[in-house]
Amino acid sequence: MKTLPIVFASALLLAATTSTSAQATTDKNHEVAETLAQKAQASSLGFDIVESLTVEVGPRLAGSAQDKVAVNWAMAKLTSLGFDKVYKEPVTVPVWHRGIARASITSPFPQPMVVTALGGSIATPEGGISAPVVRFDSLDALNEAPADSLKGKIAFIDAKTERHRDGAGYGKTAGGRSRGAVAASEKGAQAIIIRSIGTDHDRMAHTGMMRYNDGVEPIPAAAISNPDADLINAMLKRDPSVVVSLELGSERRGEATSYNVIAEVSGSSKADEIVLIGAHLDSWDEGTGAIDDGAGVAIVTAAAKHILDLPQKPARTIRVVLYAAEEVGLVGGKAYAKAHEAELAKHYIAAESDFGAGRIYQIDWRVADSAHQSMVAAMAVSQKLGVVAGNNKASGGPDVSMLPALGVPVASLRQDGSDYFDYHHTPNDTLDKIDPEALAQNVAVYAQFAWMMANSDVALRPLPAKE
Amino acid sequence: MKTLPIVFASALLLAATTSTSAQATTDKNHEVAETLAQKAQASSLGFDIVESLTVEVGPRLAGSAQDKVAVNWAMAKLTSLGFDKVYKEPVTVPVWHRGIARASITSPFPQPMVVTALGGSIATPEGGISAPVVRFDSLDALNEAPADSLKGKIAFIDAKTERHRDGAGYGKTAGGRSRGAVAASEKGAQAIIIRSIGTDHDRMAHTGMMRYNDGVEPIPAAAISNPDADLINAMLKRDPSVVVSLELGSERRGEATSYNVIAEVSGSSKADEIVLIGAHLDSWDEGTGAIDDGAGVAIVTAAAKHILDLPQKPARTIRVVLYAAEEVGLVGGKAYAKAHEAELAKHYIAAESDFGAGRIYQIDWRVADSAHQSMVAAMAVSQKLGVVAGNNKASGGPDVSMLPALGVPVASLRQDGSDYFDYHHTPNDTLDKIDPEALAQNVAVYAQFAWMMANSDVALRPLPAKE
Repeated sequence: MKTLPIVFASALLLAATTSTSAQATTDKNHEVAETLAQKAQASSLGFDIVESLTVEVGPRLAGSAQDKVAVNWAMAKLTSLGFDKVYKEPVTVPVWHRGIARASITSPFPQPMVVTALGGSIATPEGGISAPVVRFDSLDALNEAPADSLKGKIAFIDAKTERHRDGAGYGKTAGGRSRGAVAASEKGAQAIIIRSIGTDHDRMAHTGMMRYNDGVEPIPAAAISNPDADLINAMLKRDPSVVVSLELGSERRGEATSYNVIAEVSGSSKADEIVLIGAHLDSWDEGTGAIDDGAGVAIVTAAAKHILDLPQKPARTIRVVLYAAEEVGLVGGKAYAKAHEAELAKHYIAAESDFGAGRIYQIDWRVADSAHQSMVAAMAVSQKLGVVAGNNKASGGPDVSMLPALGVPVASLRQDGSDYFDYHHTPNDTLDKIDPEALAQNVAVYAQFAWMMANSDVALRPLPAKE
Repeated sequence: MKTLPIVFASALLLAATTSTSAQATTDKNHEVAETLAQKAQASSLGFDIVESLTVEVGPRLAGSAQDKVAVNWAMAKLTSLGFDKVYKEPVTVPVWHRGIARASITSPFPQPMVVTALGGSIATPEGGISAPVVRFDSLDALNEAPADSLKGKIAFIDAKTERHRDGAGYGKTAGGRSRGAVAASEKGAQAIIIRSIGTDHDRMAHTGMMRYNDGVEPIPAAAISNPDADLINAMLKRDPSVVVSLELGSERRGEATSYNVIAEVSGSSKADEIVLIGAHLDSWDEGTGAIDDGAGVAIVTAAAKHILDLPQKPARTIRVVLYAAEEVGLVGGKAYAKAHEAELAKHYIAAESDFGAGRIYQIDWRVADSAHQSMVAAMAVSQKLGVVAGNNKASGGPDVSMLPALGVPVASLRQDGSDYFDYHHTPNDTLDKIDPEALAQNVAVYAQFAWMMANSDVALRPLPAKE
């Protein structure tokens, strides 16, 4: 065959044209992304934002007076940065007050311990609780204890959190924190203490959320520092009866209104479509919320600001969401999903930065299988920043983790969290733990991600079924 | 000349005999020292001792109830180890009670701080003190402030402690802790806060002794954590008026009796001469006193025990002294010097281990200049343990630092203190900060030192004049 049918030739021509045009667009986008990386890495904007938040607001527990200060700070900061839209959406959040926390070993060798109430815990009765501890290696081991075997006892889950770059150790032990009180109460325990879910050996206790179940008597729940857990173990080797005294003044105080604070860089040709980059504004109350999650707030805000300052607009709208009340149960994330239910179909992709300020080393996705390689190709632009391609099984981050079930694609920009659980949920979560250069690398990668996603021509839906 | 005069020949013969005999003795001592090093490094005795002290006693502030527990622990431990003599000598110690300590920034950005009272501080008035801070780079800068310029203010000494192997950074900043209150009061200040004398960036405050002078109004004195000092600086950049609220419940409670606890390995041919190796038994009250100075207690006790277990006795008596109340003013050391005044001429040499559990890298001396090189030669046996020869300007350690003025030679077995001031005087001074292998190296070097000194034939007096 010497000549091609006209229809076929036209199709080829069209394909070639499209391809050339697509290639040009891709090249142009990569060029912009490269500029964004250079600007982000040369800028102190990210560090300035987290410095401002930790100095001018500090701890900002959901529903507290400082939470309101944080919302006002965020509105003012985003407004001053000149975003196209800045607004807030109300979120009903639980209010919990920490109060005093004291613990000591009273026998066989009296020693004070460093303790913190777990978030959501009830108080101990007046005068505290004093009882022998029963030690368990894990939540599973506690669950296997005989019924009523903990009557008159304090359960002690003594699981060490392993150090991993991706934070995998936390996943193995955090269940003891969140579900330990219910498990211990079911066996009759008066209270539960856990070895802190932390990779450090600082004499600081790590707080974090726990929960009760309807129908199971709530009992006080606290974490002791790693050195104190070691101390109990050393005593148990000498004497099977180690008596602990625990006093918590914690209180649940109903509900309050907080806010998801939102800023946008308006899109051009696809302005109704959303690329969501988020972080959470609330923090625990003992540090200044620098790595959790002041860093995330800084990263996504600065990334969007660098795009805002470009001469060209992104095709899609880039929406920065600073979520309320993540720590106390992803409350802001769930509220956003509900409030924006009708708009979720227009969410092209979402990602949350909530793992400190360590460098991003990999991007995982949760997009249509057919789109995965295109996304990998799009973000090849971040290779220079040390970022490699990851899998297609991302969760996207806590506050966007409910979105894939609602059809929304997500990405996880995986950060090096090797030291994250040294500081997480302790008084040690302060600004000095952030490396400004690593933070700037995060800003650069998020800026590239947001830009590439805002201008992508690839369809990311439908999502693969969850494995 | 073909024949030697008889007298000269005899002298030569005598010299040769003496020299051969001396050499044989030296070789034999080095052989024993080598055996001691091997035994010490293969043994967990040192670690077991500090583990026992930190678990079974824990914090043991001079004059507290736990101080008595510590003395009883020491008597029982030394007795159980089978020392030739175990006894205690009363020491009158000041009693200070820490009480509550709270501090916060109340303006321009309200934030809680982590604070600790400095040892010996008085309390704040009922309800605390609230006043603007005036920041100084150093104690010297505070001393240069105009008279009365701090009326109605809280002085803030903001000197960062540098990290050095030999702890030199501490020497530069500790004066602000000990003498800052007097200096601030002289300028009219209501209270003083200092940046913690610590090389860490943990949100922990470092306590430590301070003093008042007769005729200068005492004012409350406290240390804030390094991250909190950073926070005040960040606010001062925004607003010259940073108001701090401080509340201390500390109390001086008169005096109590504590004890220097002493154990001996009896000497043979020179049993009335003493080689003193010491450490202090007391500790601050917020950690478990592991590195300060449980490690020292373990090192000198284990070292002496390894010698006790040898088939041969040392020529001189080796005396282990576990001093009372070092932290609150070298009280036990001064009491020992006084109680043993008549016996000091019989003290061959003294050394105290009070710098954690880092490896010994050098030995400094304070001996007759004529003896220095002989001492270097004697301790060449520790070269295999990584120890090099040092100068002849040693202090010997806090509790023996007054002995050179009384004619007693001392040695400083210098430890790597690179991380010592990360944990020193904080809740973080716990067992997990001790590396068992480094501790065992210390035991080995102290055992070698005590053995070589107990059997040395070199005269160490008179001491060179202090420079």
